[in-house]
Amino acid sequence: MTGCVFCKIIGGQIPATKVYEDEASLAFMDINPISRGHTLLISKEHFVRVSEMDAEKYQAMVKVVPGLTEAIIKATAAAGLNVLQNNGRVAGQVVEHLHIHLIPRYQGDGLGFIWRPKPAQAEELAGLALKIKSNLGK
Amino acid sequence: MTGCVFCKIIGGQIPATKVYEDEASLAFMDINPISRGHTLLISKEHFVRVSEMDAEKYQAMVKVVPGLTEAIIKATAAAGLNVLQNNGRVAGQVVEHLHIHLIPRYQGDGLGFIWRPKPAQAEELAGLALKIKSNLGK
Repeated sequence: MTGCVFCKIIGGQIPATKVYEDEASLAFMDINPISRGHTLLISKEHFVRVSEMDAEKYQAMVKVVPGLTEAIIKATAAAGLNVLQNNGRVAGQVVEHLHIHLIPRYQGDGLGFIWRPKPAQAEELAGLALKIKSNLGK
Repeated sequence: MTGCVFCKIIGGQIPATKVYEDEASLAFMDINPISRGHTLLISKEHFVRVSEMDAEKYQAMVKVVPGLTEAIIKATAAAGLNVLQNNGRVAGQVVEHLHIHLIPRYQGDGLGFIWRPKPAQAEELAGLALKIKSNLGK
């Protein structure tokens, strides 16, 4: 898409340090990493949110995730790794082209998702589940 | 796997509020949600980390992610959603059975991934990319 920085990387108009490429996806090093080895996996076709994709295109995009995760962990000797895909500005999405963050994690790195769990009422969960099910496949 | 809480949910020994199920995966409401509509998608086969899976099994597990994300957003009227998969205790993984968090996001919810980007040196990224590429497909 015109003006999209990730489309320009795919098209070669903006350089990137690539680690993987196939027909559906491209992976490259984040130039502003939040940890050593922070890698981005993007869809070659322009989508903003994952909900815009169909199952087949998503599967083609993410098939390298297990292997890429393993390769990043081996290359960095990280103790763990977060696979994170943000949909919407409120969710932390800055570049409006579908991308998955692969974030190697190290002891004491101070990173992580802010976690404030609250036990839920069974009736509330049942009501939500019903609504989600009724919206699935529409 | 014996003693695994998610394997017990799959086997029906522990109840869960399910929203989706197929041969490869099961989705249900998190009983300790960090936001309204927080849903877990798990692999039916027991794995701990995504790097243990092969591409085909991962694709089978995640094929519902686009549709499920859309259904959760419609059901909750969330403004966005994080798809998060934690590998390793250091990355926030508590239950040692591969699972993907689908976390609906709302304005002012105070959640999100802690983000402290630092511009990287081109040579450092090139060195990391080389190491990652050499470990891909091994």
